[in-house]
Amino acid sequence: MQLLNWRQLDALIDAALEEDLGLAGDITSQGIFDASARISVKFVAREPGVLAGMPVALRVFSRLDPSIASGVLIPDGARFDAGTALAYANGPAATVLAAERTALNFLRHLTGIATLTDAYVQKVRHTKARITDTRKTTPLLRSLEKYAVRMGGGLNHRFGLFDAALVKDNHIAAAGSIRDAIRRLRASIPHTATITCEVDRLDQIPEALDGGADSILLDNFTVADLRKAVELIGAKARTEASGGVNLTTVQAIAETGVDLVSVGALTHSARQIDIALDAG
Amino acid sequence: MQLLNWRQLDALIDAALEEDLGLAGDITSQGIFDASARISVKFVAREPGVLAGMPVALRVFSRLDPSIASGVLIPDGARFDAGTALAYANGPAATVLAAERTALNFLRHLTGIATLTDAYVQKVRHTKARITDTRKTTPLLRSLEKYAVRMGGGLNHRFGLFDAALVKDNHIAAAGSIRDAIRRLRASIPHTATITCEVDRLDQIPEALDGGADSILLDNFTVADLRKAVELIGAKARTEASGGVNLTTVQAIAETGVDLVSVGALTHSARQIDIALDAG
Amino acid sequence: MQLLNWRQLDALIDAALEEDLGLAGDITSQGIFDASARISVKFVAREPGVLAGMPVALRVFSRLDPSIASGVLIPDGARFDAGTALAYANGPAATVLAAERTALNFLRHLTGIATLTDAYVQKVRHTKARITDTRKTTPLLRSLEKYAVRMGGGLNHRFGLFDAALVKDNHIAAAGSIRDAIRRLRASIPHTATITCEVDRLDQIPEALDGGADSILLDNFTVADLRKAVELIGAKARTEASGGVNLTTVQAIAETGVDLVSVGALTHSARQIDIALDAG
Amino acid sequence: MQLLNWRQLDALIDAALEEDLGLAGDITSQGIFDASARISVKFVAREPGVLAGMPVALRVFSRLDPSIASGVLIPDGARFDAGTALAYANGPAATVLAAERTALNFLRHLTGIATLTDAYVQKVRHTKARITDTRKTTPLLRSLEKYAVRMGGGLNHRFGLFDAALVKDNHIAAAGSIRDAIRRLRASIPHTATITCEVDRLDQIPEALDGGADSILLDNFTVADLRKAVELIGAKARTEASGGVNLTTVQAIAETGVDLVSVGALTHSARQIDIALDAG
Amino acid sequence: MQLLNWRQLDALIDAALEEDLGLAGDITSQGIFDASARISVKFVAREPGVLAGMPVALRVFSRLDPSIASGVLIPDGARFDAGTALAYANGPAATVLAAERTALNFLRHLTGIATLTDAYVQKVRHTKARITDTRKTTPLLRSLEKYAVRMGGGLNHRFGLFDAALVKDNHIAAAGSIRDAIRRLRASIPHTATITCEVDRLDQIPEALDGGADSILLDNFTVADLRKAVELIGAKARTEASGGVNLTTVQAIAETGVDLVSVGALTHSARQIDIALDAG
Amino acid sequence: MQLLNWRQLDALIDAALEEDLGLAGDITSQGIFDASARISVKFVAREPGVLAGMPVALRVFSRLDPSIASGVLIPDGARFDAGTALAYANGPAATVLAAERTALNFLRHLTGIATLTDAYVQKVRHTKARITDTRKTTPLLRSLEKYAVRMGGGLNHRFGLFDAALVKDNHIAAAGSIRDAIRRLRASIPHTATITCEVDRLDQIPEALDGGADSILLDNFTVADLRKAVELIGAKARTEASGGVNLTTVQAIAETGVDLVSVGALTHSARQIDIALDAG
Repeated sequence: MQLLNWRQLDALIDAALEEDLGLAGDITSQGIFDASARISVKFVAREPGVLAGMPVALRVFSRLDPSIASGVLIPDGARFDAGTALAYANGPAATVLAAERTALNFLRHLTGIATLTDAYVQKVRHTKARITDTRKTTPLLRSLEKYAVRMGGGLNHRFGLFDAALVKDNHIAAAGSIRDAIRRLRASIPHTATITCEVDRLDQIPEALDGGADSILLDNFTVADLRKAVELIGAKARTEASGGVNLTTVQAIAETGVDLVSVGALTHSARQIDIALDAG
Repeated sequence: MQLLNWRQLDALIDAALEEDLGLAGDITSQGIFDASARISVKFVAREPGVLAGMPVALRVFSRLDPSIASGVLIPDGARFDAGTALAYANGPAATVLAAERTALNFLRHLTGIATLTDAYVQKVRHTKARITDTRKTTPLLRSLEKYAVRMGGGLNHRFGLFDAALVKDNHIAAAGSIRDAIRRLRASIPHTATITCEVDRLDQIPEALDGGADSILLDNFTVADLRKAVELIGAKARTEASGGVNLTTVQAIAETGVDLVSVGALTHSARQIDIALDAG
Repeated sequence: MQLLNWRQLDALIDAALEEDLGLAGDITSQGIFDASARISVKFVAREPGVLAGMPVALRVFSRLDPSIASGVLIPDGARFDAGTALAYANGPAATVLAAERTALNFLRHLTGIATLTDAYVQKVRHTKARITDTRKTTPLLRSLEKYAVRMGGGLNHRFGLFDAALVKDNHIAAAGSIRDAIRRLRASIPHTATITCEVDRLDQIPEALDGGADSILLDNFTVADLRKAVELIGAKARTEASGGVNLTTVQAIAETGVDLVSVGALTHSARQIDIALDAG
Repeated sequence: MQLLNWRQLDALIDAALEEDLGLAGDITSQGIFDASARISVKFVAREPGVLAGMPVALRVFSRLDPSIASGVLIPDGARFDAGTALAYANGPAATVLAAERTALNFLRHLTGIATLTDAYVQKVRHTKARITDTRKTTPLLRSLEKYAVRMGGGLNHRFGLFDAALVKDNHIAAAGSIRDAIRRLRASIPHTATITCEVDRLDQIPEALDGGADSILLDNFTVADLRKAVELIGAKARTEASGGVNLTTVQAIAETGVDLVSVGALTHSARQIDIALDAG
Repeated sequence: MQLLNWRQLDALIDAALEEDLGLAGDITSQGIFDASARISVKFVAREPGVLAGMPVALRVFSRLDPSIASGVLIPDGARFDAGTALAYANGPAATVLAAERTALNFLRHLTGIATLTDAYVQKVRHTKARITDTRKTTPLLRSLEKYAVRMGGGLNHRFGLFDAALVKDNHIAAAGSIRDAIRRLRASIPHTATITCEVDRLDQIPEALDGGADSILLDNFTVADLRKAVELIGAKARTEASGGVNLTTVQAIAETGVDLVSVGALTHSARQIDIALDAG
Repeated sequence: MQLLNWRQLDALIDAALEEDLGLAGDITSQGIFDASARISVKFVAREPGVLAGMPVALRVFSRLDPSIASGVLIPDGARFDAGTALAYANGPAATVLAAERTALNFLRHLTGIATLTDAYVQKVRHTKARITDTRKTTPLLRSLEKYAVRMGGGLNHRFGLFDAALVKDNHIAAAGSIRDAIRRLRASIPHTATITCEVDRLDQIPEALDGGADSILLDNFTVADLRKAVELIGAKARTEASGGVNLTTVQAIAETGVDLVSVGALTHSARQIDIALDAG
């Protein structure tokens, strides 16, 4: 069951509406439409994709004007073709049109992420690897973007710096060794949080395992080295590949047997999927 | 003189930091670094581009920890090559590293937009046309994204629905005619706001001119029709081309003599420019 | 169709209620009324005027207590006599009375502005001039005060510094000339924003027209000079008179043929219209 | 020692700046001034008055741009003549001018209140009566307006519904009698809060005194009845006159011997005092 | 009639939910429950007490998910035994369980305070003394904690520093004498606010009475001295005992005849009452 | 290195100050002290304890008035005796005294938690068990209370529902079995989050281990059963005891060999430690 955090989302939606409407509002529509003018619109896909964010897009309408009625026609997470009607809304013309662009800005961005995630997931579905996101997200949209990744079939990585530990070069240098870094963390962070150790050479792996890392992040490893790493690590820790992952390379990477492949582009460079609002 | 709205940006930056740090903070760095551990970092470009957002990225550090010192090495709006050092920061290792990802998330996104805008601008610099953005922006980042467009040499379109009028199909249908739509607006909106009329056929232009539109937005016109429209309109109104604009088509569009070419992709689908933080 | 920005207004109303109620609330009413005590009240005018802000006043009741029912008896923008019942509300005595003063504080202030605006508008209705407001508004109430001006038949000027340009002495001095100031602005501000040039002498007008100003603000001109300015400018730009405008002078100023007359007093010095809440 | 609540005021000032600057800022000044352009300005009175709010006005500058320097030349509460320089500011031209109107909007409004309060205070200085304000204040500005009343020599009434009890008709009817209303309040409100009883007839006074009211508010009493009431009440409670108070009537009202005269117009209908910003 | 300030409480509740749910929410329940899974729960007391805060606890559910239905079974202020069912809620399992801990954290804390207050009140019910709270409250919960004190039968002291004056050592020293301190306050604070004077010796009382203090706070007096103070003061001022008050000493203190006994422990050290949520 | 989240804490502190000061401020001190009156104060312990929250307490002063100077004399986490001077502050008397109570309310509460945590930690220091907190915290203070637990030598449990999974009865029933519950979670929650399974009988342990739980929470087990559980589980998962833990029972519980003992009372029922502000 997917729950969206409406307390946070409503604030986000309101701020997005404020950005577009300012204090004066949609001066064109207010100047032209009578209070009695109504409109019915449909969200229609102009190209295929995997849907994400429609409940958010429809919430934009109801936050602006609770009298706008709306409903989804296919659920988030579903694949759609060009031309598919995805949802509908109807209400006062002046407020429906005022909300249009803000609603689409959320929807097209999130659907772009879900669609790209799905493309990666399809490439690796014959392996045990899960596609996962990173912290390379758009400021203030992380929660929604991670939701879109899940809608595309991906698995989320840690949400932020606060919910899991990731030991990198600078930490190892400061602690003196991988082992000491992990030991310090076990003594200070909640026992419910995992520790991942990032390595960029095979020879760092034994110490990370000895230290008791829960996961090993294999950064910028060649496919050959990934295979060696997976064998070396076995069931002692989770394995995660990162770096140089794209739609061309992801299959070979996943076939090395790693548990996870993390892809920054899912959230930082997905292009929008073209969805428009058609009247009538 | 470019002024950033720090009252708004600080709230944005704080929210972005909150997203990454939560209430518990960077549990890895806090668990490992001593209060005395310090680090010096440089922002280094991994590929060429046009810089935008460095003051925002550096502000991320000072919002998190005022004791972090930082400075820009090249100004926003400047073109850079791969390998260029763009800015520096130094301070407590635990806070510098905690701010890193949030700072980069802003910077890489905005620099991506400036770089893409610049690509368009270079294609049309032999014409009088200005490249302009749209309202297809990322929720909550419109102000920054429009700033990035300016850094890339573009001109901003209206900020939102509140600062200028744009008459579209639905408005014309509700008002009865283009002329009536414009008349109604002149009677109700501030006299300081302009009215643009969107048309998708040449034969709509005379009425828009008669009605007294300040600008005519020529949507999805062929290059041939754009040329005819420009001739028809002359100095009576500004001309703006939109629809089907990409790096391949923009030059021919601009050479029709239009005043403006608006490009949604500048803000909704620019890929990030790769910039990293190097220690030492 | 007039749309009020409830997202912003609700925050304003809540803050106004907080100001009056604090954390402890209306200690008198809470100490005396039982939960079952109910009251019916009417908003009654004690003097004639033009109504503005009743939806805001009634919203004060529903924000404090959604169980309070209320309705308007005459619409905003309507003229009323002393003794007219303007709206009603009924609900729990403790919350109706707690909201009373806050509701009246909004209503009487806004109705004062609409009434004063109407007085100016009546003086110039035989001319083509529109009465317009200024940025001399009460902090945090600009949006509502500009709405009240519209309810009184006025036209709004630019909302703030962000939605239109106004070139004054200091700008001209910095740019070197009126022409250079306008040229710089055309290159940097959205093409959808107009440029007004403020002048205080007739001989500045030709340069402003040459520079391509959309409007000329004639500040503190004598009626004779206003007439000359209007002739000189013709259809080349909008004309706006400001300075020394009051209910005695406004007619002669408007009869010079200017398009607009701006009046700071509309928002900064309108006295409240006396409206009270009568029980029963 | 007068302390302004900067936590609250800074939020107010920021919101006022936001209202005028939006997200795009002062597009005129940003488009014209170079970063190096600086300006020195003085606040100069165009008419005499009693100053209130200068620290707030100057804070507007520093909130917008901490690099603006400023200082007061005469303190709040001081009387000034037309032509007096009241304060100065200097800094970047683009930000000084952007803050100007917001600063003046606060200052002129508050100085208007202090000046009007002072006019009332001067009329009654030969009596023991203090001039006091009411809850008829501008939404969100109550704290500042009450400060302005103090600067004009007035005494503040209760801040809101939460810090003192005021028993009116509806309360008395609900409780059954004045005595029962006061008894109920003593049992439920903090023992540190006073109870005022509003009466509109002389014959209500004995019961209010028996009930133990701390103050008696004599609403719309004739001067003759006020005199009788003052005699009747003696030292048993404070006496406060309200209703029909204006600059013509206040002296006679005060000379009846009442302790307090409350004047709604101080905060709801004071006209602004003309103060301008002069460059150079 | 007790009114809770929902404008403030909703913000508090939302922040408390945010604290527990973050942006990712209850990952356990979302991962396991289907959207159709529902649950019915009861709040059941594990030990006896006096209820306070149930409307707040139930509001936690509806703020998180408006589709959760709930109702109280006994009112706030009522005494209950171990095993009593206090309220019920039913709705989607994922949201009911997600709200559980936050609801209980409010409820158990407030009920702890009401129960402890009641214990003090029972000890002094044969005297005229009222038990009152102090400003030693939990940050951000003062309003609720004072409500809980009322539910336990206590009387609230001043809400904060703003609604009544309390003269202590430092003030007396700065003013020169108790009399001068009170005189200064009468000239500057609202006439509707009372002045309490804190004394720690019998010989300070005459001057406080002469100065016109409304209340005398007798701090850390022995029972014998309290008795002398009460006699000395008579009806000239209210008397309040503070310091060294606990469940063992409170009766003797109250029997001295003081009007009020203030107890810091009511809000700063009440232990929680054990209430749990039982399914089914 | 302990980092406090000042972005969040400053908002908390400001809200706490607002609660005590309202809009009118400390009317006593403002009415009495001159701007030149200054005071020096020391935080002095009235009983022994373990310090937590002094940086927060001192921040209260600087948030209210940046001109107040202050410094810690012993660090958070240090043990102190009655009579120890813990920190100092000096500045304007009116603001130092206005901040006093708010500062103490934070400090005494947090020091109470650290001191109680330390008492538990001392009881188990000869075992490998760590004392850990729960989610039974005071609304809005969780972050600070968990900090206080760390200052007292405790280890934090998960921060909230979002950063680790905890499978309880209702989840197991909904999923069908412990194994299915864990399987579902592994497929949906971030791979970086751990899964704890709560059991209340020994015979549930094998399935939890088979399912792959990271930790087993042994709820309300007898000491004898705890010992059996520890043996049964061995190194296959972490073990945590909860329920019925108090200062009398904790030693025997820890001596069973469990990894963790969680204690709700640390945060929900610690009494405050008496610390006062002494002038001079």
